[in-house]
Amino acid sequence: MTTAILDTLRQAVGAAHVLTDGDLSAYERDWRGRMQGKALAVVRPGSTQEVAAVVKVCAAAGVAIIPQGGNTGLSVGSTPDASGTQVVLSLTRMQAIRAVDADNLTITVEAGCILQNLQQAAQQAGFLFPLSLAAEGSCTIGGNLGANAGGTQVVRYGNARELCLGLEVVTPQGDIWDGLTGLRKDNTGYDLRNLFIGSEGTLGIITAATMKLFPQPVARLTAFAAVPSMQAAVRLLGLAHQHLSAGLTGFEVMGQFALSLVVKHMPQLRVPFAGMDGAPYCVLLENSDSESEAHARQRFESLLELAFEDGCVLDAVVAENLSQAHDLWHVRESIPLAQAQEGLNIKHDISVPTSRIPAFVEHADALLQREIAGVRLVNFGHLGDGNLHYNVQAPEGADGKAFLREQEPRVNALVYDAVAQFGGSFSAEHGVGQLKTPQLQQYESPVALSLMRAIKQALDPQNIMNPGCMLAKD
Amino acid sequence: MTTAILDTLRQAVGAAHVLTDGDLSAYERDWRGRMQGKALAVVRPGSTQEVAAVVKVCAAAGVAIIPQGGNTGLSVGSTPDASGTQVVLSLTRMQAIRAVDADNLTITVEAGCILQNLQQAAQQAGFLFPLSLAAEGSCTIGGNLGANAGGTQVVRYGNARELCLGLEVVTPQGDIWDGLTGLRKDNTGYDLRNLFIGSEGTLGIITAATMKLFPQPVARLTAFAAVPSMQAAVRLLGLAHQHLSAGLTGFEVMGQFALSLVVKHMPQLRVPFAGMDGAPYCVLLENSDSESEAHARQRFESLLELAFEDGCVLDAVVAENLSQAHDLWHVRESIPLAQAQEGLNIKHDISVPTSRIPAFVEHADALLQREIAGVRLVNFGHLGDGNLHYNVQAPEGADGKAFLREQEPRVNALVYDAVAQFGGSFSAEHGVGQLKTPQLQQYESPVALSLMRAIKQALDPQNIMNPGCMLAKD
Repeated sequence: MTTAILDTLRQAVGAAHVLTDGDLSAYERDWRGRMQGKALAVVRPGSTQEVAAVVKVCAAAGVAIIPQGGNTGLSVGSTPDASGTQVVLSLTRMQAIRAVDADNLTITVEAGCILQNLQQAAQQAGFLFPLSLAAEGSCTIGGNLGANAGGTQVVRYGNARELCLGLEVVTPQGDIWDGLTGLRKDNTGYDLRNLFIGSEGTLGIITAATMKLFPQPVARLTAFAAVPSMQAAVRLLGLAHQHLSAGLTGFEVMGQFALSLVVKHMPQLRVPFAGMDGAPYCVLLENSDSESEAHARQRFESLLELAFEDGCVLDAVVAENLSQAHDLWHVRESIPLAQAQEGLNIKHDISVPTSRIPAFVEHADALLQREIAGVRLVNFGHLGDGNLHYNVQAPEGADGKAFLREQEPRVNALVYDAVAQFGGSFSAEHGVGQLKTPQLQQYESPVALSLMRAIKQALDPQNIMNPGCMLAKD
Repeated sequence: MTTAILDTLRQAVGAAHVLTDGDLSAYERDWRGRMQGKALAVVRPGSTQEVAAVVKVCAAAGVAIIPQGGNTGLSVGSTPDASGTQVVLSLTRMQAIRAVDADNLTITVEAGCILQNLQQAAQQAGFLFPLSLAAEGSCTIGGNLGANAGGTQVVRYGNARELCLGLEVVTPQGDIWDGLTGLRKDNTGYDLRNLFIGSEGTLGIITAATMKLFPQPVARLTAFAAVPSMQAAVRLLGLAHQHLSAGLTGFEVMGQFALSLVVKHMPQLRVPFAGMDGAPYCVLLENSDSESEAHARQRFESLLELAFEDGCVLDAVVAENLSQAHDLWHVRESIPLAQAQEGLNIKHDISVPTSRIPAFVEHADALLQREIAGVRLVNFGHLGDGNLHYNVQAPEGADGKAFLREQEPRVNALVYDAVAQFGGSFSAEHGVGQLKTPQLQQYESPVALSLMRAIKQALDPQNIMNPGCMLAKD
């Protein structure tokens, strides 16, 4: 039977694109190497029609399909289980930029298009495609949409969801839904687009998307500020919204311990205000201006003046040129690598209402330090969106592996309970995947869960689309 | 049996809030007076718990529920059929502003809150709630979300959908889903929020919502420009995006015939460039500035300079003060009333990709004039969103009633076929309702329709939620 299925798949996409031998770990293991699965085959269709054909073959045989883009997700949402019975459907051959519509400010691309290539295609056409995140060199736009990726520009441009106007999707029955409109207003029936976005491949396979483009800013300026408290950082955010309005395109917060790891492991980087007394956090701000660099600088300076007066900023630097701006961003972006060099740690991607972030952090910091002597908190993230990467590092000198093994469930429970208490989410931008399936069951309301199960059952009654992901089996 | 149901409903919400006698036409007839229904009762719950109780009573008895806000919709989506068996569930008693969270830039309100009251509550807290449309004095935020309302600020702030962060919903089973988060990032399961938004009360009843707030602009400037063609208007839009970026908060287009009706029926209004040779269209632009009025004016003037050079603007005025700005907006907003005074007409609320608007208009204008001698086209709308109110007025002197009776189906077919041909939507912002159910069947793809039917069946298997609306019965 397996042979028959593989033969039919080979007919659908060509024998060269049905991989069963050799090292397939790039497809079978998740990005962070937390789980290693085994696929029946990795199938690489080259067109939407081929995707539909593959799905029809699998649906007829009752074979589960794991849709996969760049396989860079952080919640194990795109790899097969260990059974050797699931087909990985890789979209990476479908990379075409189908159309750029300058007057409509849209670009239509295939799901396997790498995010960076999409950014570059936009730039070549004279526009900005603002989605930006660490994995942009290898993640795909289909994966970004399947997981509703966030990143560093969300405070201005929204998540992947807000950047998408239309989708092409292959349903679990192998039908093709052509919803690739470039319309900004279209109130004709249920919002299928947003249902598929963020569904992590459990309701169908995104094969192409029409995304929004934006004018390129004329100038982009970056500042780095030391703040006396998280509450002050939130006040600075309010001032920045008021003063820069939509010019505010980045607002990142970094705790001093996170910065100290950058200082320690990347000694070549200059980290402003590292270890500064009375400044437990630093903030990185970005101001994008449609007028001129001089104007951007003047707006930034007048914002910082206000902030000094208010007391919510202790000291600040504004990058003098692009290279300095790049260096400041590089400090922020180096935190994940620095903490990895420091040792294994327990990662969280949480959000709470921005107004409650200071109280949440105070509560969670104290709680963890009380419960686990010497624990070290690597707290940084997208404060502009209420999204923190609130990571927990083993005590100095402790064995990271043992710490993870012994403490991870307990630490997760402490953090996620606190998040729930403050009205937040246990997964702000990384999704549920296989990793956070238990948290979804625990923290999502029973009414919401039953609505989600009803939708899954209605659209994928065979449960063949990414069955171990998100809702999983009950 | 009817008596028993009414008694149980009276127990649920109090006898005073179950209306069965007297003139109920405000609840039973749609805003434009196209359909007059007859309700079993109009039930006015005062809390989410009461809404849930009403739904449970109706679900147990198999009685259909028509959720209703301000009943100002333009597609007949909130009135009962003529059978006298359906319950109108009016949310108008649920008007509370539950919370304003300044640091989180959110406001949480009950569904029956009138849009204008929501705008005012935001303003009193020092913020902007940007949703704005003609019916704002009587429509409710619940209705706005149920229909995914648009309006005049969409080019900058998006539709009602984009302004909403969280919902509270009563399901067709009478369960309460508390999804009232104020989170800007939350990737935990399917996007229930967006599924309910725009579902026109067919999947559940929105009882409260958490909406985004924005900083108040420091200055708002309005300009009115004469353009040599629709293509030039689209070019002006591109320049405005580039030059003003997110400062561009309004971009409306008006055909000269539409403006001539304002001149004719509102002689007290000054209409700039009315009847100007070589200028078939005028455009109204709004620039919101976070800095100063002087800065807004300077940016506007430099945009218009560019546009004159480009040739896409023939002449323009910039309002000198708020009163002049108000007058210019008033011209735009008077078009619907002016066309009503001219006589009955066939209304369309269509969108096509902005890049294709010029070709669409050229095609549809010629087609209609060829097919119906003397027909007059009242073309105006939100060009910034690709959304036109492309209305068709009877030939001069013709009997409007007879024109509607004889020509409406044919005119609709001509317009909607053309819209489909240009990749557009037959309902950009007004929704489907009972009115456009046939168009949904005709123009939506079979795959999309079958997905929508599966969702409806999964969430409302009894088909008691607004059953005549949107998908209707097959």
